[in-house]
Amino acid sequence: MDTKLRGFVLSVYIVFGLPVITAHNDPSNKIMEDFSGYPIHEPQSQDSLLSLSVDSEGLQKQIDELSTLSETPAPSVTRILYSEKDVLARRFIKNLMGLSGLSVREDAVGNIFGRWDGDEPELAPVSTGSHIDAIPYSGKYDGVIGVLGAIEAINVLKRSGFKPKRSLEVIMFTSEEPTRFGISCLGSRLLAGSKELAELLKKTVDSQNISFFDAARFAGYANHLQDLTSVFLEKGSYSAFIELHIEQGPILEEEATSIGVVTAIAAPASIKVDFEGSGGHAGAVLMPMRNDAGLAAAELALAVEKFVLESGSIDTVGTVGILELHPGAINSIPSKSHLEIDTRDIDEKRRNVVIEKIHQSALSISENRGVKLSEFKIVNQDPPALSDDLITMAMESACQELNLTFRKMISRAYHDSLFMARISPMGMIFIPCYKGYSHKPEEFAAIEDIANGVRVLALTLAKLSLA
Amino acid sequence: MDTKLRGFVLSVYIVFGLPVITAHNDPSNKIMEDFSGYPIHEPQSQDSLLSLSVDSEGLQKQIDELSTLSETPAPSVTRILYSEKDVLARRFIKNLMGLSGLSVREDAVGNIFGRWDGDEPELAPVSTGSHIDAIPYSGKYDGVIGVLGAIEAINVLKRSGFKPKRSLEVIMFTSEEPTRFGISCLGSRLLAGSKELAELLKKTVDSQNISFFDAARFAGYANHLQDLTSVFLEKGSYSAFIELHIEQGPILEEEATSIGVVTAIAAPASIKVDFEGSGGHAGAVLMPMRNDAGLAAAELALAVEKFVLESGSIDTVGTVGILELHPGAINSIPSKSHLEIDTRDIDEKRRNVVIEKIHQSALSISENRGVKLSEFKIVNQDPPALSDDLITMAMESACQELNLTFRKMISRAYHDSLFMARISPMGMIFIPCYKGYSHKPEEFAAIEDIANGVRVLALTLAKLSLA
Repeated sequence: MDTKLRGFVLSVYIVFGLPVITAHNDPSNKIMEDFSGYPIHEPQSQDSLLSLSVDSEGLQKQIDELSTLSETPAPSVTRILYSEKDVLARRFIKNLMGLSGLSVREDAVGNIFGRWDGDEPELAPVSTGSHIDAIPYSGKYDGVIGVLGAIEAINVLKRSGFKPKRSLEVIMFTSEEPTRFGISCLGSRLLAGSKELAELLKKTVDSQNISFFDAARFAGYANHLQDLTSVFLEKGSYSAFIELHIEQGPILEEEATSIGVVTAIAAPASIKVDFEGSGGHAGAVLMPMRNDAGLAAAELALAVEKFVLESGSIDTVGTVGILELHPGAINSIPSKSHLEIDTRDIDEKRRNVVIEKIHQSALSISENRGVKLSEFKIVNQDPPALSDDLITMAMESACQELNLTFRKMISRAYHDSLFMARISPMGMIFIPCYKGYSHKPEEFAAIEDIANGVRVLALTLAKLSLA
Repeated sequence: MDTKLRGFVLSVYIVFGLPVITAHNDPSNKIMEDFSGYPIHEPQSQDSLLSLSVDSEGLQKQIDELSTLSETPAPSVTRILYSEKDVLARRFIKNLMGLSGLSVREDAVGNIFGRWDGDEPELAPVSTGSHIDAIPYSGKYDGVIGVLGAIEAINVLKRSGFKPKRSLEVIMFTSEEPTRFGISCLGSRLLAGSKELAELLKKTVDSQNISFFDAARFAGYANHLQDLTSVFLEKGSYSAFIELHIEQGPILEEEATSIGVVTAIAAPASIKVDFEGSGGHAGAVLMPMRNDAGLAAAELALAVEKFVLESGSIDTVGTVGILELHPGAINSIPSKSHLEIDTRDIDEKRRNVVIEKIHQSALSISENRGVKLSEFKIVNQDPPALSDDLITMAMESACQELNLTFRKMISRAYHDSLFMARISPMGMIFIPCYKGYSHKPEEFAAIEDIANGVRVLALTLAKLSLA
């Protein structure tokens, strides 16, 4: 640890480890901003570190305010890509970045970058961030704390008087959730240079038949007609990427551990399946004459569960989150059904065995029930991502120095980090959340736990900035 | 058979049984209407019967034109209660009634009545009719031929010079299909005096949260705020009710039989089920921690099929036409599911055994999967209806006199006749349809078969009018 960092760490140590009661700042010296909701961002001398800490109250206010930009009533949050609420939420984030003194840029799909220039701006910056879109009827912490928390981490560093060597950059990724266009991590996949996705988006429409580009233009993006290569970032654009996130699992809470240091992100895959039968009147078509596309879907949904359990590993999961029947009338035998299946594992091979079993099962259900398997499409089948050792070591050091309990763990959920890992060394910081709940209104993380995450993030960014 | 009817039947016999080539009408006597698309409706003398027949071409045109009033593209038909298309379709029917010289009235929920006054208008009229609403993505014959065919039957009788003793009335029923408000045979249930339904409608809303009364007012009905007792008809209001309908089953077509004389309508029941689980993130919540409301629904859907097959009777049917998951995102474990189940039988007790098994299964699924069975509601559990012997005898005589093959059969589908049977002697006439298809775009009935049905209907109405 070089002298500069040691001095900084010591300061943070004192700030974070102790209640902020001692102050050699004369209270009469306070300026107006000290009393406002948002903390001040004036760079301060390295001598004034004692007066600073995570502004938990302000951060909670921001989380609460952002949650009101929702298409469904509280406590649920629904924020769909490029919707009116999404546009308002993006403005909220850009405002906060501006208030923190970051220089803001947006790319053609609305990934938002807020940069704090370091003393050596020619070096690859250290970046951190997450997303703020929210699936229908979900909660207010997933993604959000990785964006608002990142901006607050910058504030913490600024208030501490820290001077970055490498620039620090906060990223808000576009559409981590697949809600609108069926594509998860849309922004980070593009950042990581997915030509396949850049092509696919040219013909992608939502369920209302609105094209991706029309939707993007509604939100003020994609003005360069259909050319998304400008979004791609070179490998090495960042020296590190770190994402702060709620665990979305119960382990940290159950163990009363403050921080999860993520070593790998489980490999996710998603599959779309369509069955087609003859349909007909629910009263008039006798049972032996039927080929019910709805029952085919029901069978496949239960088969997914069976194959996942057969893997024998606690780490294999599979979910049918979407199951739709057509025409969807009580007195009509379903003539079509549509399923979307999500399956994940930390072991890619084991996960692929499950996918193959699902495929075989879809074929045999199709044959047994006389329905047509009109689509079986593996939409994505991403490989798992491993965290960078130097980054996890920096995070572990940060936890130790901040006197916070921590453990190594696996992320079973999908994150933008999975794709950032393709162009940058990557690491993730998890914090506990209530019962592991996520993607529902009951999702909750205590502000103390969020503040701990912000402290670890700030210290890790500082370490990596000086590296 | 009295002399008057014998004379009439003989005439119809000649008209329908022989090609219309002989004519003692001098062609030079023809008026403009003879050459127009719609047939003339001037009452003619009993002597001019030879020049008349079913106007198959005109009837097919009407069926085709009505099918274009649809919310989905051809060949599918979707006509939802009180929608803009429904309002246009109602106008179309009222115009045709007017052109046929019927006096038109509508009640508070939009049941439409077209009356041809008989010589003894103080007697209870003979009525006939069906519905024109269509479930999403269905076809153009279900219900429609029982309304357009009824108006054409009146035209046939008028052209034949027939003079009714009892008045004849064509009824277009409101919302036979349960699509919008989840209530099947809404209009005929109310006509039959369902106080329960009149009360229920006060608090009924559609899936968009539009109240029944707001929807009705949009279509120009329900001006008498929430008082639907005006719709009720006294028992005995009609001396007979007859409905012409496609079979919605394959028997008549397979046997090459022209007419089905319905002796009973199978007893339908419908059930709404809701499961509630914890939901959560599809990646983060491990399998043993889950209580997936979607898988509970899938299990119950397959159980319905199992119990129906266990009945051992070909006449027992059961269908899950609606299965919805909440929140309905690929990366979210379903926290809620909703099913709507339809089960029918000609044996009410046997059907009720199936319902009880479904209930027990829902309870045990709920227990095994740790999900809450938050609703298990038997929405209706109607008793079967038997046709009136005198009416079926009149229909059989009509078939014999018209030299058409016929058979007695059971209606496995739900009809307005089921409820009309509560206030009037009832009978139904079935005609063949392609492969028994119904409730889908492929639904088809040949115009020759429809014309046969209209002939039998016309002759039966004539017989009953004179009775």
